[in-house]
Amino acid sequence: MDNGKLPVAILGATGAVGQRFIQLLEDHPWFEVRELFASERSAGKPYREAANWVLDGGPPSRVGELVVQLLGGAVSSPLVFSALPKEAAVELEPKLAAQGKIVCTNASAYRMTPDVPLLLAEVNGDHVALLDRQRATRGWSTGALIANSNCTAMPVVMTLAPLRQFGVKRVHVVSQQAISGAGYPGVPSMDMIDNVIPYVSGDEEKLETETLKMLGTFDGEQITPLDTRIGASCTRVPVLDGHLVHVSVELEERPTHAQIREAWACFRGSPEVASLPSSPALPVVYLEQHDRPQPRRDRMIGAGMATAVGRLRDCPLLGYKYFALSHNTIRGAAGSSIQNAELLARRGYIDSFRPN
Amino acid sequence: MDNGKLPVAILGATGAVGQRFIQLLEDHPWFEVRELFASERSAGKPYREAANWVLDGGPPSRVGELVVQLLGGAVSSPLVFSALPKEAAVELEPKLAAQGKIVCTNASAYRMTPDVPLLLAEVNGDHVALLDRQRATRGWSTGALIANSNCTAMPVVMTLAPLRQFGVKRVHVVSQQAISGAGYPGVPSMDMIDNVIPYVSGDEEKLETETLKMLGTFDGEQITPLDTRIGASCTRVPVLDGHLVHVSVELEERPTHAQIREAWACFRGSPEVASLPSSPALPVVYLEQHDRPQPRRDRMIGAGMATAVGRLRDCPLLGYKYFALSHNTIRGAAGSSIQNAELLARRGYIDSFRPN
Amino acid sequence: MDNGKLPVAILGATGAVGQRFIQLLEDHPWFEVRELFASERSAGKPYREAANWVLDGGPPSRVGELVVQLLGGAVSSPLVFSALPKEAAVELEPKLAAQGKIVCTNASAYRMTPDVPLLLAEVNGDHVALLDRQRATRGWSTGALIANSNCTAMPVVMTLAPLRQFGVKRVHVVSQQAISGAGYPGVPSMDMIDNVIPYVSGDEEKLETETLKMLGTFDGEQITPLDTRIGASCTRVPVLDGHLVHVSVELEERPTHAQIREAWACFRGSPEVASLPSSPALPVVYLEQHDRPQPRRDRMIGAGMATAVGRLRDCPLLGYKYFALSHNTIRGAAGSSIQNAELLARRGYIDSFRPN
Amino acid sequence: MDNGKLPVAILGATGAVGQRFIQLLEDHPWFEVRELFASERSAGKPYREAANWVLDGGPPSRVGELVVQLLGGAVSSPLVFSALPKEAAVELEPKLAAQGKIVCTNASAYRMTPDVPLLLAEVNGDHVALLDRQRATRGWSTGALIANSNCTAMPVVMTLAPLRQFGVKRVHVVSQQAISGAGYPGVPSMDMIDNVIPYVSGDEEKLETETLKMLGTFDGEQITPLDTRIGASCTRVPVLDGHLVHVSVELEERPTHAQIREAWACFRGSPEVASLPSSPALPVVYLEQHDRPQPRRDRMIGAGMATAVGRLRDCPLLGYKYFALSHNTIRGAAGSSIQNAELLARRGYIDSFRPN
Repeated sequence: MDNGKLPVAILGATGAVGQRFIQLLEDHPWFEVRELFASERSAGKPYREAANWVLDGGPPSRVGELVVQLLGGAVSSPLVFSALPKEAAVELEPKLAAQGKIVCTNASAYRMTPDVPLLLAEVNGDHVALLDRQRATRGWSTGALIANSNCTAMPVVMTLAPLRQFGVKRVHVVSQQAISGAGYPGVPSMDMIDNVIPYVSGDEEKLETETLKMLGTFDGEQITPLDTRIGASCTRVPVLDGHLVHVSVELEERPTHAQIREAWACFRGSPEVASLPSSPALPVVYLEQHDRPQPRRDRMIGAGMATAVGRLRDCPLLGYKYFALSHNTIRGAAGSSIQNAELLARRGYIDSFRPN
Repeated sequence: MDNGKLPVAILGATGAVGQRFIQLLEDHPWFEVRELFASERSAGKPYREAANWVLDGGPPSRVGELVVQLLGGAVSSPLVFSALPKEAAVELEPKLAAQGKIVCTNASAYRMTPDVPLLLAEVNGDHVALLDRQRATRGWSTGALIANSNCTAMPVVMTLAPLRQFGVKRVHVVSQQAISGAGYPGVPSMDMIDNVIPYVSGDEEKLETETLKMLGTFDGEQITPLDTRIGASCTRVPVLDGHLVHVSVELEERPTHAQIREAWACFRGSPEVASLPSSPALPVVYLEQHDRPQPRRDRMIGAGMATAVGRLRDCPLLGYKYFALSHNTIRGAAGSSIQNAELLARRGYIDSFRPN
Repeated sequence: MDNGKLPVAILGATGAVGQRFIQLLEDHPWFEVRELFASERSAGKPYREAANWVLDGGPPSRVGELVVQLLGGAVSSPLVFSALPKEAAVELEPKLAAQGKIVCTNASAYRMTPDVPLLLAEVNGDHVALLDRQRATRGWSTGALIANSNCTAMPVVMTLAPLRQFGVKRVHVVSQQAISGAGYPGVPSMDMIDNVIPYVSGDEEKLETETLKMLGTFDGEQITPLDTRIGASCTRVPVLDGHLVHVSVELEERPTHAQIREAWACFRGSPEVASLPSSPALPVVYLEQHDRPQPRRDRMIGAGMATAVGRLRDCPLLGYKYFALSHNTIRGAAGSSIQNAELLARRGYIDSFRPN
Repeated sequence: MDNGKLPVAILGATGAVGQRFIQLLEDHPWFEVRELFASERSAGKPYREAANWVLDGGPPSRVGELVVQLLGGAVSSPLVFSALPKEAAVELEPKLAAQGKIVCTNASAYRMTPDVPLLLAEVNGDHVALLDRQRATRGWSTGALIANSNCTAMPVVMTLAPLRQFGVKRVHVVSQQAISGAGYPGVPSMDMIDNVIPYVSGDEEKLETETLKMLGTFDGEQITPLDTRIGASCTRVPVLDGHLVHVSVELEERPTHAQIREAWACFRGSPEVASLPSSPALPVVYLEQHDRPQPRRDRMIGAGMATAVGRLRDCPLLGYKYFALSHNTIRGAAGSSIQNAELLARRGYIDSFRPN
């Protein structure tokens, strides 16, 4: 480890989220991809050959030369990013954590497990301390399992968090989700050209549960979900990246639009979180134009780690409404996972690694 | 008028809605396009040359040979379909009605005018009697001005109408609208490829007002709008035809899903309306699949005159929610206009014309 | 067989081409779908449940109730349309022909087999007589195996056939192919939004060989392919249906543009072929506009059975060039198969069936 | 000019190419945007308000505050980038050059004018010396007018230039062009969803002439165009950025594929050109994969300044064929203009400015 960077393993390295991990970790100041794991089809081949790279350009050349290993084999890196499908994650992730690995997962398998932090660093960075309890309960010394949220819940949580001060009573969400949320090959083009699919398997349920856990409070023992009623309807649209959500929200107080926008503008997360390499300068950015945020034009705001908001208006039914947008495979997946690992590193949860 | 069909004039014949009128009136059993009116750019040319036909295929050959006349010139047909932009409609439409023409308009100019019926035949066919008052007040003997609704309000109204029996209290709408709603050239492709625009100029306001007028009651004197609170957010998606709306609705009663679906399935409009040539056999069609209605696959249901509904579920906030879809340039524009004219013909409002 | 229609079986009934067969055979004057065959996943279920209908609307209601049978099981219909993948076709199709079935196949397995007619009825309807030889050689009495061409070769062949009189020397093709050519799920949407794929597996080779066989001559014994040099490059574009090809062609003679257009306009196939229910009135239609043919606007010309041509110009390199377009799943697949079966019926190849 | 950068004016600053100039010049090491010119509609407003920014994100904040000036007004910057439409360019560009400005234009107005260099720096950087003749003939001391090529000719020229050594005899091009080539609003979305337009106004002619001028030789007096026959057919596809071309080429010699790829790999332009800030490390990059180059995935290669090539194969008709791709608004427009200005600066054509 000549360059002082922490070795990192990626599980499910050849899939769409695995690729995003590799792309985002190129030139990361603290972490370096050293191991790639995937299924039999890919194992034994150089990554360059094994992966059908679906992002722009090609894989970073150094990583392209790494030989893919078979999932389930020994992992030597202390930090593991998982882009596994749920079924594979269920078994493998806790096993690696039990072996002492820090496992940051995108899979949905353990998001709602009580002792697993479901982390969106600016929003509930304090939930990370749940790991102490996780380790105590499970008898893990250096290992840990930490999840990040469903990509559609993300822009909802990010924009509601600053409004908690006004009392969030009821939330109504309609999403327009990008195809990359379904991975590769994912959504057939015959379903998406000149079309919208008013259904995304599982996302409505996830949005209605994960949102409340992330916005919940941690009392040192457990997380109490936010006591809010939330309803969600999800659709898939012919957009590559960037989940757009329409949010109507009822608040206990009656803040002005200016106060709400002030709450968004001031939102930062803790100073510790704000200083992490992957944290955007402004987590929530309000766009003044009358027709924003737009997926293609605004998804890369804050290098894909910020959430864009626009069109805050009165909702005749619930009080307030707005549109929010986040990059679903950066902020909504790999990027948040990496940011979570950075927070763990900063907090000293990664054994014998202290970032400078 | 050898074939016994009523001569029809189309105003704004070269635009996207004008073309749809021409397409739908080909082989109409009662009406025949005889006059085409457009702006200076087109006047004097055969329609085939004047129009940049943007629908599939080309214009019907007979109409292609008609010479386009200048807007504002004398109209000889007793029935006029207007696809004019609002500005042109304001002046010309009442003028033609005063000259004794039946003017069925798609323009928004007079939709909310108290003595102009805003007609969706199955829903408020009885509002047509407002024409008696219109004629009395304005001193028109054979002329009339009748409007059809905004294309986005259409699927909302069509699916709420059968629910009036349960008491419609509050309605929350988020739309995903097709590009053809903006006409031609309309939405630039640079705004629509890999993108969604969370804004459609004017449609939220129209949806919030026109819906209530259409669902209102006519007491022989005037229309009292439905007393319901409605909020709408409109977006534009990369879809050619077919406006998809997500509707959350609060009802006074608590019908079961089965009762609601029964209400939709039984909905017909009056027998008189149901027998019109353009009326679909089933105005509201519930789709059982978990991922329908979809714009491309379901917009032509009932020859583009029916409304497809799907995914009826409980809404944790307002009680019920579902998706609905209508073809925006057929049911939401030209097709409804033609159906309205058919109703007027059947009711005897078109002087000396009795359809068989 | 009360209605006098010939019972038809469809192999691979749940796939995209299978669905197109079912759609096109609804209300066919001679044939009626009675049996549906598919893989284990679908067998035993009503078609309505077994098939994920990807075309517009839904399956015809009568066919929706048919129970899907397992591929390989006994077929009782005398006429079989095959939408099987190549691997499944190789074994099953000749087996059914040997059992006495008329097998009209879309699969590529036997297209280049010497005694299998590769039929495009207007172009080489006379090749159907090759079936006599096929039956003699293989010892089949009532069975037959007949293929239709690759969907990309189709518009090339259809527009070159009328030019054979001028001597076709060299042909250069660049295609822009619709996604439905790859079936369902087929092309991932992540490959097609905001993108073009300059590669279609196998199509360049097929185009370079099948074209020459179809344009070849049959001397009563065998087919001699056209002696022409042809080169093809194929691309996939974000279009649902309709393969567009750019053709540059060198001719031995130097006809004028008017002569070429005359050749296209007069092209009919034999009177026998022209009278078949699925034959378009005009097989090749020249579009005068400067920017046609366009896939979305022109693919349904002649109910999807005609080929649209446009932009005939001089090519500085080969002499002539133009664009041509055909509907790839109608004329380029199921529609041609049905037309072929019609020709066989008319010619008396379908035992004891004489169409009226 | 505290920071030592050369002040730059942009003509047509609010259009799509104007925006690309502004985006690419942010943080340019030598040049700094100081003046923005546009039509009456925009003049007098801060750029942020005047421009409907159609690229991703928004305009750089410093430029956003600049007040747009009326086209035709006095220009004080010595270097002028023109993104004007042809009609406006005809008059204004030579006028500014006569006033002593260095005018680098994207307009087509003067591309084929004998004393105007049509520059693609790596290909014909030596043509820049034509400016001496231009100045002498026109009596310009410090002014100059220099053009860059049509965006579709660009990938053709860039990939043919390294093949000049083998003798380029005949060239056949079919393009698939991005919508941004038509500017904003440009191509209506109703023409592009589920469609291809087999026509791009003017581009075939430009490709057939400009290509030969760029590949021509300069003898100190004049440019002699390459003596090659070239034919082009252009289409528009639903792609945002990146023009894909299929090129078939006949060469005098018969190099192996390896020799051709070697010629591309070694291609650099002069060392002087290669050292310019905007020059890509590798101007022509061959992609090994069987399905590349693809517009969305490969257009940003070399920061949008390189040309991607793939699928080199034998062409049965002309000998060789391949696909090439360039970013049409970077390499094909603003980026090349900026690179040209850099070359002029390096060569001392920009009075009293010496880049470090």
